[in-house]
Amino acid sequence: MKELTTDYLEDAIEDSRPFAASGNVNMSLPNFDETMKDMLGVSIITTDQQCYSAGDHLQVIPMQSTSKVVGLMLALQDFGKERVFNAVGMEPMGDFFNSISQLESFDTSKPFNPMINAGAIAVAAMIKGQSPENRFSRYLDFLKEMTDNDQLYMSEDVYEAEKANSARNRSLAYFMQSTGTLVTDVEEALDLYFRMNSVMMCSDDFARIGLFLACGGRSPQTGERLIPPHHLRTVKAIMMTSGMYNSSGHYAVEAGFPCKSGVSGSIIGAIPGRMGVGVIGPAIDEKGNSTAGGALIKKLSQDLGLNMFGEKGGFG
Amino acid sequence: MKELTTDYLEDAIEDSRPFAASGNVNMSLPNFDETMKDMLGVSIITTDQQCYSAGDHLQVIPMQSTSKVVGLMLALQDFGKERVFNAVGMEPMGDFFNSISQLESFDTSKPFNPMINAGAIAVAAMIKGQSPENRFSRYLDFLKEMTDNDQLYMSEDVYEAEKANSARNRSLAYFMQSTGTLVTDVEEALDLYFRMNSVMMCSDDFARIGLFLACGGRSPQTGERLIPPHHLRTVKAIMMTSGMYNSSGHYAVEAGFPCKSGVSGSIIGAIPGRMGVGVIGPAIDEKGNSTAGGALIKKLSQDLGLNMFGEKGGFG
Amino acid sequence: MKELTTDYLEDAIEDSRPFAASGNVNMSLPNFDETMKDMLGVSIITTDQQCYSAGDHLQVIPMQSTSKVVGLMLALQDFGKERVFNAVGMEPMGDFFNSISQLESFDTSKPFNPMINAGAIAVAAMIKGQSPENRFSRYLDFLKEMTDNDQLYMSEDVYEAEKANSARNRSLAYFMQSTGTLVTDVEEALDLYFRMNSVMMCSDDFARIGLFLACGGRSPQTGERLIPPHHLRTVKAIMMTSGMYNSSGHYAVEAGFPCKSGVSGSIIGAIPGRMGVGVIGPAIDEKGNSTAGGALIKKLSQDLGLNMFGEKGGFG
Amino acid sequence: MKELTTDYLEDAIEDSRPFAASGNVNMSLPNFDETMKDMLGVSIITTDQQCYSAGDHLQVIPMQSTSKVVGLMLALQDFGKERVFNAVGMEPMGDFFNSISQLESFDTSKPFNPMINAGAIAVAAMIKGQSPENRFSRYLDFLKEMTDNDQLYMSEDVYEAEKANSARNRSLAYFMQSTGTLVTDVEEALDLYFRMNSVMMCSDDFARIGLFLACGGRSPQTGERLIPPHHLRTVKAIMMTSGMYNSSGHYAVEAGFPCKSGVSGSIIGAIPGRMGVGVIGPAIDEKGNSTAGGALIKKLSQDLGLNMFGEKGGFG
Repeated sequence: MKELTTDYLEDAIEDSRPFAASGNVNMSLPNFDETMKDMLGVSIITTDQQCYSAGDHLQVIPMQSTSKVVGLMLALQDFGKERVFNAVGMEPMGDFFNSISQLESFDTSKPFNPMINAGAIAVAAMIKGQSPENRFSRYLDFLKEMTDNDQLYMSEDVYEAEKANSARNRSLAYFMQSTGTLVTDVEEALDLYFRMNSVMMCSDDFARIGLFLACGGRSPQTGERLIPPHHLRTVKAIMMTSGMYNSSGHYAVEAGFPCKSGVSGSIIGAIPGRMGVGVIGPAIDEKGNSTAGGALIKKLSQDLGLNMFGEKGGFG
Repeated sequence: MKELTTDYLEDAIEDSRPFAASGNVNMSLPNFDETMKDMLGVSIITTDQQCYSAGDHLQVIPMQSTSKVVGLMLALQDFGKERVFNAVGMEPMGDFFNSISQLESFDTSKPFNPMINAGAIAVAAMIKGQSPENRFSRYLDFLKEMTDNDQLYMSEDVYEAEKANSARNRSLAYFMQSTGTLVTDVEEALDLYFRMNSVMMCSDDFARIGLFLACGGRSPQTGERLIPPHHLRTVKAIMMTSGMYNSSGHYAVEAGFPCKSGVSGSIIGAIPGRMGVGVIGPAIDEKGNSTAGGALIKKLSQDLGLNMFGEKGGFG
Repeated sequence: MKELTTDYLEDAIEDSRPFAASGNVNMSLPNFDETMKDMLGVSIITTDQQCYSAGDHLQVIPMQSTSKVVGLMLALQDFGKERVFNAVGMEPMGDFFNSISQLESFDTSKPFNPMINAGAIAVAAMIKGQSPENRFSRYLDFLKEMTDNDQLYMSEDVYEAEKANSARNRSLAYFMQSTGTLVTDVEEALDLYFRMNSVMMCSDDFARIGLFLACGGRSPQTGERLIPPHHLRTVKAIMMTSGMYNSSGHYAVEAGFPCKSGVSGSIIGAIPGRMGVGVIGPAIDEKGNSTAGGALIKKLSQDLGLNMFGEKGGFG
Repeated sequence: MKELTTDYLEDAIEDSRPFAASGNVNMSLPNFDETMKDMLGVSIITTDQQCYSAGDHLQVIPMQSTSKVVGLMLALQDFGKERVFNAVGMEPMGDFFNSISQLESFDTSKPFNPMINAGAIAVAAMIKGQSPENRFSRYLDFLKEMTDNDQLYMSEDVYEAEKANSARNRSLAYFMQSTGTLVTDVEEALDLYFRMNSVMMCSDDFARIGLFLACGGRSPQTGERLIPPHHLRTVKAIMMTSGMYNSSGHYAVEAGFPCKSGVSGSIIGAIPGRMGVGVIGPAIDEKGNSTAGGALIKKLSQDLGLNMFGEKGGFG
């Protein structure tokens, strides 16, 4: 077991960076190019608000699918667990994140869970607000509060790229409309989903989200509970079974704590009662997970004893 | 939060028993009939070897799929993690436990994980021994040691029923032979699998297996480590993502600790560093999980603070 | 073998009408209601231009999927066989006409054939014209010429209903955009597809289309060939393997000549070198075929010796 | 249009032989090797018993899947159409011949049609006989009579190879047992199926089977009807929609008459009322069809006017 220090994190970054070589940068994201391939940054914030960072931790990248955990928290708050899970399942699935067969192959045509695209679009449709603008600003304000960072913003370029590359998500959304899963305006739900994916963050921010999930959903400034513990448990359990695309089982075994990744190379980790972890590493594997970031997550688990399935329960 | 006492368990049994009404007893098992529908028993054994039991905790039933966790421990011990997971995946899947489409629909034709029938048959083929008899006696001896119960036995009736009702499992096994996943003798692997499912146990025994998983894989008599901690972490993580058939996601959210169920109505629960849980409740739902037993597992989690995703890490 | 006369057709209608009882009228079509359930009309036009009709043969209904054969003829004419079948396959499939899994489950993501919705939308995108209006008027003019009926028109009500009920087709179309199968404007392709389905016809008109396919693609007025024989062979072969939804194999066996049905209860039959058949019978089965109309088609085949697989080659 | 002569066939062989280059010889068959790659033989026998042959028409190869049409004729004779198609469907499918997903994905778990392996195994189980030996000798006697060749024999080598390579078919058969589709002894049904595939023939024999199908099911010696016309129509219709694996739609368009292929490179063609065609060409494509043989079939159709969808009905 090693001690969590900035020096340790610097070493861990250098040990993990070579894994970037086996991944590829997602060039469909604006300004993402080969020069980003070796980037790797990490931030860890502990319950007692100590913050440790290393590597490219100030590089901002779009949230992409890490937005799914934040959207789910808001929808649970707005509609309650029962209504949310009437529309979306909570079962892991053995298929790619944009699978449409999965929607068709079961009786209910309910998306398997909120961590896949179809599920997250259905969840986005459950975020309340008087107008589309209002729904997005609720989301952004919630993010700013949880990360204690009022500089967060949506990248117009990323948003435009999301829209320009939206055929598959549009197909998923109209499929859900055809089966009655999506009953609100399809284009509005998609638009909010695209905007949510386009908020820019660095690994410090991702770690703040992890800490928020790990330690009671409290505002870092006021200590006030913004999301009740039972909703956070739900979100973390779903991250564990489904947060890392169709490598979720692998990460449950090898990291052993709840994570959520995005195709920008982002990863949020939440170690209950202990810390939040944020990682950025733009080279991703064919499943959508950061290759160097994933290696780093597994190393942290082993070195710092973060595997929840250890014999000391989250400490072994 | 409630205190764990025998009285508490008696109350919990009575609160959960009515859920049996929505399930059905699996009549394909010998001696299983309507009179068993309302049976419900529970045992909990804590790290300090305190044992609490209530209800029909002495009723013996066949292990059925709970054998999958024991087989996996032996195969990991015999072949190591890398070789085991070359043959079987570790990803959860959104399909029924005896799905064959799943085997066909992915490039590798590797079973998704060791908790589904195909995966468990492939795992059984990796348990070492000079002869089929020897392989099964290694399994039974391992069980006797871990449960501290040398009375454990295989029911010939259950074994015969397994064989008589084996067409689907035989189809899965030959499919794996055709894709090269199963390279040993198919009929021998199936025979061992059927025998493993046919060992009879009461909830005390199931709880002992849970404790073994939860607390370091030690012999209850000698305290000697029989299985190293890293294999136990692997098994528990896979139980969390895949142990409750295609309700595994639901149980990760609602119970929040690793469980494995069988169609006899058995459930093994392992709360890392704290306790093992054994449940028997023969009325099962259409997914294969005990209805009253599942309700009881969720109640225990809530009342005793066993949800690992809570903000205190396995204590909230 | 019976003789083709109007009296014979009247009797055949009465023998087949009771099969309407097992079907249901497609209430999502405007003005379709229970009063139409027992309607059944038939028209047969032979190579020598003799026309025989019986029953409700003057009732007009929307073309629905029978439009697929006409769209395919135009696309083959406009783009040639090679380019059309680069975008759409020609293989029958064992799945429902609006399946999206089918699009996902094969490497190319090419729709199986032009008789299913996805394929027909891709085909509609290949009908030439300077503008959307022009593309539809080319289609309507083609229909008017082939049926010798310049009164044909598109029902605005049906078109509006198609649009209002379009989520599944929109999902299919955007899916094809996401895989690069559909490269033109998705909404324009869908709009043309909806309009094509909304042209109103009676069974005389459907029989004219059958005759056009059966006997050389000639204008009834001028005798001029509008579509070359090799394209007609292609269309008829695809009707045989795929024209009757996922009962196509059944109709190949039981009728034995190329047919295409629509969910309005329409059927076009083309007996090569002999005659065209048009049927309307709004009560459809769960696969989408007219129940009484299908029974009638099979009866005609048997009574008039229209099964092409007979030992006298289309006469036995 | 060309005239059918031996000279014509010799030319057609030479035109088609180069297509062998794109295929591969199925090396899992005994004695099949690279030296057979360029082999191509054809035989045509017309209604008036004229026989034309060219190329390697005397080369004997195993029937492989061409046995499926003969087995279907016997089962229809033994059990009648209704009972046969209660156990097996008659719908084409868009999947590979040994698909097992297909068996699982539909309610009934009935194989799609008798031309795929699962369907043919179910059909083999419906061939009557007092003993396994008797069932096979009925099949072989039927073949001898229809081909007027009492020298036909089963290759023990091929039969042994079939058995040694049987895991996938065994998986399909046990799957059907598990769903109740296959109620007779699984191993006996498989054994008969393997034997049926192992009968050796040259293209003259294949052409005789085609003629039998095309022209009334009559004994070549006695002229007696062995199979009634309605069963032959059924078999030919199913060959048209499903006889050429998942290129059946392609061959319906490009050849336009009923065919059945085998992975030995065999093809049987039946042009109703006109002729039988037999082809051998061991180089097969990835779907299982002879590449040179398929090219030849399409050339014959075009040159000799055999496309049944032509405007003169089987003559255009």
